[in-house]
Amino acid sequence: MVGQIYVQMLSRHPWFEIRAVTGNTSVGKTLAEAYRGRGHVPEKYAELEVLPSDPSRIDADLVFSCLPTKAAREVEPRFAEAGFPVVSDSSAHRYQPDVPLIIPEVNPEHLGLIETQRRQRRWDGFIVTTPNCTTVGFALPLKPLVDRYGVRYVNLVTMQSVSGAGFNGVSSMAIMSNIIPYIEGEEAKVADEPRKIMGTLQDGEVRPLDIVIDATCTRVPTLVGHLEVVQAELNREATVEEVAETLGGFIGLPQQLELPTAPRRPINVVQEEDRPQPRLDTDAGSIPGMTVTVGRIRRGRRPNTVIFVSLSNNLVRGAAGSAILTGELLHVTGWLR
Amino acid sequence: MVGQIYVQMLSRHPWFEIRAVTGNTSVGKTLAEAYRGRGHVPEKYAELEVLPSDPSRIDADLVFSCLPTKAAREVEPRFAEAGFPVVSDSSAHRYQPDVPLIIPEVNPEHLGLIETQRRQRRWDGFIVTTPNCTTVGFALPLKPLVDRYGVRYVNLVTMQSVSGAGFNGVSSMAIMSNIIPYIEGEEAKVADEPRKIMGTLQDGEVRPLDIVIDATCTRVPTLVGHLEVVQAELNREATVEEVAETLGGFIGLPQQLELPTAPRRPINVVQEEDRPQPRLDTDAGSIPGMTVTVGRIRRGRRPNTVIFVSLSNNLVRGAAGSAILTGELLHVTGWLR
Amino acid sequence: MVGQIYVQMLSRHPWFEIRAVTGNTSVGKTLAEAYRGRGHVPEKYAELEVLPSDPSRIDADLVFSCLPTKAAREVEPRFAEAGFPVVSDSSAHRYQPDVPLIIPEVNPEHLGLIETQRRQRRWDGFIVTTPNCTTVGFALPLKPLVDRYGVRYVNLVTMQSVSGAGFNGVSSMAIMSNIIPYIEGEEAKVADEPRKIMGTLQDGEVRPLDIVIDATCTRVPTLVGHLEVVQAELNREATVEEVAETLGGFIGLPQQLELPTAPRRPINVVQEEDRPQPRLDTDAGSIPGMTVTVGRIRRGRRPNTVIFVSLSNNLVRGAAGSAILTGELLHVTGWLR
Amino acid sequence: MVGQIYVQMLSRHPWFEIRAVTGNTSVGKTLAEAYRGRGHVPEKYAELEVLPSDPSRIDADLVFSCLPTKAAREVEPRFAEAGFPVVSDSSAHRYQPDVPLIIPEVNPEHLGLIETQRRQRRWDGFIVTTPNCTTVGFALPLKPLVDRYGVRYVNLVTMQSVSGAGFNGVSSMAIMSNIIPYIEGEEAKVADEPRKIMGTLQDGEVRPLDIVIDATCTRVPTLVGHLEVVQAELNREATVEEVAETLGGFIGLPQQLELPTAPRRPINVVQEEDRPQPRLDTDAGSIPGMTVTVGRIRRGRRPNTVIFVSLSNNLVRGAAGSAILTGELLHVTGWLR
Repeated sequence: MVGQIYVQMLSRHPWFEIRAVTGNTSVGKTLAEAYRGRGHVPEKYAELEVLPSDPSRIDADLVFSCLPTKAAREVEPRFAEAGFPVVSDSSAHRYQPDVPLIIPEVNPEHLGLIETQRRQRRWDGFIVTTPNCTTVGFALPLKPLVDRYGVRYVNLVTMQSVSGAGFNGVSSMAIMSNIIPYIEGEEAKVADEPRKIMGTLQDGEVRPLDIVIDATCTRVPTLVGHLEVVQAELNREATVEEVAETLGGFIGLPQQLELPTAPRRPINVVQEEDRPQPRLDTDAGSIPGMTVTVGRIRRGRRPNTVIFVSLSNNLVRGAAGSAILTGELLHVTGWLR
Repeated sequence: MVGQIYVQMLSRHPWFEIRAVTGNTSVGKTLAEAYRGRGHVPEKYAELEVLPSDPSRIDADLVFSCLPTKAAREVEPRFAEAGFPVVSDSSAHRYQPDVPLIIPEVNPEHLGLIETQRRQRRWDGFIVTTPNCTTVGFALPLKPLVDRYGVRYVNLVTMQSVSGAGFNGVSSMAIMSNIIPYIEGEEAKVADEPRKIMGTLQDGEVRPLDIVIDATCTRVPTLVGHLEVVQAELNREATVEEVAETLGGFIGLPQQLELPTAPRRPINVVQEEDRPQPRLDTDAGSIPGMTVTVGRIRRGRRPNTVIFVSLSNNLVRGAAGSAILTGELLHVTGWLR
Repeated sequence: MVGQIYVQMLSRHPWFEIRAVTGNTSVGKTLAEAYRGRGHVPEKYAELEVLPSDPSRIDADLVFSCLPTKAAREVEPRFAEAGFPVVSDSSAHRYQPDVPLIIPEVNPEHLGLIETQRRQRRWDGFIVTTPNCTTVGFALPLKPLVDRYGVRYVNLVTMQSVSGAGFNGVSSMAIMSNIIPYIEGEEAKVADEPRKIMGTLQDGEVRPLDIVIDATCTRVPTLVGHLEVVQAELNREATVEEVAETLGGFIGLPQQLELPTAPRRPINVVQEEDRPQPRLDTDAGSIPGMTVTVGRIRRGRRPNTVIFVSLSNNLVRGAAGSAILTGELLHVTGWLR
Repeated sequence: MVGQIYVQMLSRHPWFEIRAVTGNTSVGKTLAEAYRGRGHVPEKYAELEVLPSDPSRIDADLVFSCLPTKAAREVEPRFAEAGFPVVSDSSAHRYQPDVPLIIPEVNPEHLGLIETQRRQRRWDGFIVTTPNCTTVGFALPLKPLVDRYGVRYVNLVTMQSVSGAGFNGVSSMAIMSNIIPYIEGEEAKVADEPRKIMGTLQDGEVRPLDIVIDATCTRVPTLVGHLEVVQAELNREATVEEVAETLGGFIGLPQQLELPTAPRRPINVVQEEDRPQPRLDTDAGSIPGMTVTVGRIRRGRRPNTVIFVSLSNNLVRGAAGSAILTGELLHVTGWLR
């Protein structure tokens, strides 16, 4: 699913061009053949041949990786060692202390970890990672709240679409007219990643943010878009209007640099009480799928507590789009050869 | 939707028999005609003619009402005044101080409010109500926790099926592959009803339980069954095993009295980490649809906090079944003529 | 549903601009308010105020009507009488002998009927209609087969999406995980319309094509796109390759004139044996939604018989898009003032 | 999916008891473990251990097989050779001339082929097969039409539920809000099987019925129930009333013998014009899932042609139920030891 989004987004990218695609079971096929029956491949890249994931056969300035965890664990270091900058949305290296875990609007300064990584691993290249698709949906709107009010605690309940599990990840018999209230490994990722992402880079390492997160992750019968109900306990009171302004007005470095994949507003605040909805809002914003839509902002009945609903495109902002935006950031900040 | 469940459940009831059904736009039709295209009517009652909702034309010992709120507001008092005991799952009178709001396993003693009601309204009959379908799903499992540990606070996130809105309540264009993160009026009901239900009857009135509830109610593309993620802050620590035992072992007066519609266990605790699921568990238990299934019991990362997932059949335990069980309770406790 | 597609298509139209929108229950609202919760209105027209359907308050060169049948029966003649050219996708006037029923690629010459209509009705304006959304999906691919081989008989089975019934047309309780094997009035329309559309205009009237059509129309749980299984008995044998070429190579007057809404190929023939699929192919072609995709072309086991599967976008090619293309045809052929 | 239905149906069977279950990847597990997350196993058989498919370890009078084709090809003959009567719903041996292909109401006399089979193969046991789930849905209602009128030709269009492909057979990304107009191998099976089933047993072989069938098989987003649109050309004219009577009145040997799994009426004719519907009618009849529901009987516009819609439960009548009914027939007709 995600590979396909990469191809679509890169087929109209002003800076990047696909030089090679690599795969495993589809090696030797064209991209169009590899994706047959699962969607459209833009004509520009339809005839590209799938190569094996071998650094010596690739000539590129930047590698995007959306490998499954186990494959990523082997393949990505091979590329980094061979000198390639690798941006990965796999979870394989996300939690290693010397690997940056980046949401470009939230912690672009963590790219500084690359130096630590290179020094420790003696690599010419490096690995930069992007978070789990579910993490982005609530860590992005948390950032401006952390900055303005401080956030002590988050209770998160997610309703995740089937595309988040890959094309064959969820059987129709399992999910049609049903909910599966568990996604393997997801809750731990979601509780830990924001601590690193919103942590402080100091002396070559990231000191995690002091925040406690409880998460319950569920799979629901939607195609695209993860909807998340976020209850956050702040360090002080905040009105609904203030929170709406804080979220809606938030911009980060990618917006300041006007990066091509940066949406004008990373967070879109909607007023209608029955929004955001996956079918209507997943592709909101100036760069479809890159904006997180937040609605139903309310104060909780306990002190300092705010509740809202967040919706993010798990394939774009949750994977390919975040990685491409990170690639752009690497480019303008001089990390690419 | 709910009327049909009443007819099905009553068609095989050992004590009760349907003497009359009343309606509005379907007056003059048979029950089978009235439900054409929406499901099966048991043969026993297929030819019953729908009458107007006029007490003078009805001969019955007990009236079950599943009217829409506005109609309930007018029709139910008319029946109560005319001497009928009315059990209603409408919200019309739920919040009036002299009207019992009953979950038979939780607060059967609140039927004592009927005396206050009759005295104040000078009625021969009376109105007893059952809660909103979403309330039952978490108030029932909260009861044993309140009794054993005390509960200060609940944060609730629901994923409610389309049947909860009635046959024509949710358009397919609105909900297929979508989530609507708002249900009109639902969150207020859900936050207030448990306070009354778990309150204390004293001197002819109910003193509400001191508990704070935040709720976010969403509609998802499932046919039957409301799934609810419950985060509860207790008054003291509890282990997962203790909570599982407390919930799984809970029984109430209906179980002690072996009422015909009382499931052997009102709460079914499942151990599998991917359960409960609406399609698999909505009809669990010895009386299909009357048992609430609870799973994924975990401790939260904050002190005294427990998180679990609850699933209830919104048409049975959430409406017709609770009302019938309440009717049985009225019968054995001598409230029916 | 269809009105919204008109607004989207016209918001980027090179020739046409919306001067006014009219409505009934939404009069006085802005377009954005009128469509709240059902989709996006392009910014360009978001603030347009909905007017009553009164010709005296409208200033326009062309009127597009997507009214329900009953309203169309009254309103459309009022506009035609007041001098407006009206292109309607309602069924109200489709079957009247002096009203053209147009698929621009199939029978543009039928616009000649306008003269008969004006003479008989003494109108300054006129009414031109487009077919039922289901008719287009198989009449368009039938046309080149009629021309090349002759077609005696068609047996049609359709699987129609819920958007074909309007936003509130199909309840989710009725259609989720279900099929309704009947759509009121649909089968008669579908069996009759192609006879008129592919008939011969002669002496101011249309002599219907001599073809027999049986249809079974069903509603299935898809959002957009009508899938149709067409079995056609030709006047002589045809190979699969010939039929594929005949369909894929077909173009009509709109393509020759390069009208803005004319897709480069009105019929897209796919080779993959598991296509067309609604989610993958509904928006195929150079003008999204205007191309009918045909696949699974096979010879039947009886002589002269061919079977294929056709997919059309019921909102675009099946309604707004066909009407707009007809409007473009009227413009270039001089029928607009 | 089908194995589970066998267990459910046999758990309450008056004659048969499960002595052993065999499997492949689940060997050593209990049945309850093997089906975890996919549905309920009746308590009676929950603790049964899954054995390897080795005849020497099994003690039983009758073997039901629902193996995948490839496994069936190897395993079933091994059991038959070892002396077991095998009833299989796999396609592995269906088309072999000496293997009966049985719909108990249609061709019970074909069990006579067992003699040929034993003689030719020198087996103590034997293999009897039941048809593809899609075949039953239209071959059963065709039988009384063949008997009364003769049927020359059938054009079949199916809309098949995802359970027909097994629990993991259809990915949710592939089918939600979509249709796949192709099912591998299905159309050939469906066109050929009725010729054998309705053929004549003579001198130890089956002479196929002279009938031509065209089929287009599609997968739609329904959970259970295959809906089929059947257009049949008879040898002479028939009125709708006659056809309805002929179908509704049809009974076969299983009904005459009052076999436990024989529904009172194998074909249920419904009059409502929007029926049958999968969610409402799949479990119709006195033995849930064993009755095929037929509706929308109409005359086609060509001579001698009738069109109707048929619905069958693909897991029960289409697999486990037909096999169990065949087992019952074998028992009462003396074919079991």
